[in-house]
Amino acid sequence: MEVKVLQDILSANDGIARRNQSLLDKHGILTINIMSSPGAGKTSLILQTISRLKQKARIGVIEGDIASTVDADKVHKQGVAVVQINTAGGCHLEANMIENALNNLPLGDIDLLLIENVGNLICPAEFALGEHKRAMLLSLPEGDDKPYKYPLMFTEADVVLINKIDLLPYLEFNIPAFHKAVIGLNPTAKILQVSCKTGEGLEDWFSWLLDEIKQTKSRYSQGN
Amino acid sequence: MEVKVLQDILSANDGIARRNQSLLDKHGILTINIMSSPGAGKTSLILQTISRLKQKARIGVIEGDIASTVDADKVHKQGVAVVQINTAGGCHLEANMIENALNNLPLGDIDLLLIENVGNLICPAEFALGEHKRAMLLSLPEGDDKPYKYPLMFTEADVVLINKIDLLPYLEFNIPAFHKAVIGLNPTAKILQVSCKTGEGLEDWFSWLLDEIKQTKSRYSQGN
Repeated sequence: MEVKVLQDILSANDGIARRNQSLLDKHGILTINIMSSPGAGKTSLILQTISRLKQKARIGVIEGDIASTVDADKVHKQGVAVVQINTAGGCHLEANMIENALNNLPLGDIDLLLIENVGNLICPAEFALGEHKRAMLLSLPEGDDKPYKYPLMFTEADVVLINKIDLLPYLEFNIPAFHKAVIGLNPTAKILQVSCKTGEGLEDWFSWLLDEIKQTKSRYSQGN
Repeated sequence: MEVKVLQDILSANDGIARRNQSLLDKHGILTINIMSSPGAGKTSLILQTISRLKQKARIGVIEGDIASTVDADKVHKQGVAVVQINTAGGCHLEANMIENALNNLPLGDIDLLLIENVGNLICPAEFALGEHKRAMLLSLPEGDDKPYKYPLMFTEADVVLINKIDLLPYLEFNIPAFHKAVIGLNPTAKILQVSCKTGEGLEDWFSWLLDEIKQTKSRYSQGN
């Protein structure tokens, strides 16, 4: 019975997610769902992206957390539109929360919407939000065996960022073995090695985003 | 309605957890529920504990994972009784899974049962398993702001282990601020700084465990 309840929830969620995506498409907004374990660097990635791309694209952010506005406050200081969602215990974002947040964002003035999901390597991968692409961060100290233990997240990601690569000299992390495990689950995944602290490797992330923004705009103008 | 379903699930779970604890008490088995984010060091803590205490206490382990037997295989090599639970997507252990696992462990030959929960800083804190104490690990690279963002886990823990303390020279982590945040939520929490890699700080963990094992045995013999 519990499984049936979960199926009903997921099916209702997918309907709302499709509605969100139609709305985002109508405005030509590339939307990225960013997922990771707690403390893997989602907020740092968003701050780096704002800093580097804000002259090239109008950015909006939705921050998902169980409690607090710590992250939204940091983003707000960068002068971009941000909505904080507090899930009050919920371990992932759902499409209806995004629907509410979209009502509170100036959609006509956004080219790129970054959604920071709740810090959790499990359930966020099950709930579509209306995003176009999924990016996940794996923090180097989490270890290279994570694809075996949390396979769905690695299967669903379009981009896998190995973050905190500056810590590599101090850790045992087998990068080729990690690549092999990810590609085994998800042959088309783009894997990047980055440090959101030092900026290393982030140019590839920025280029990918700019290219995706251009494609989204082009699809949008064809549709109108 | 979703909230009602969750309440029903939690209430049924608590009943089974009480039954599990009675069974564990009957056998005088100290049981610890070990929780953390993915890759924070739960398995390493268990392996260090087996290595250091196996001459002083008979240890059993229950390994919880979404998929794979990676961790159970490591524990099995140390020659202790271990049961692997695969939750098939579930983001936390529940009491009924532990009930099944207890049926497959030699309870008469165990003094200390270590339960490794699924790697998740959120939902595991909501589900009692029948354990006597809760230990959580916070890996240093996760950052010192985690108590604000995942308050329930820090509120529920009897022991908070700051793991990977050997990485402190390479990270910005404010230890006094972290202590203050934890104590604000949970004034009686025992906070330890450890490295499961180098062994630093683990003697306090071992002493605490040995003391708790003694107390559990003493309660058990009084009850019989």
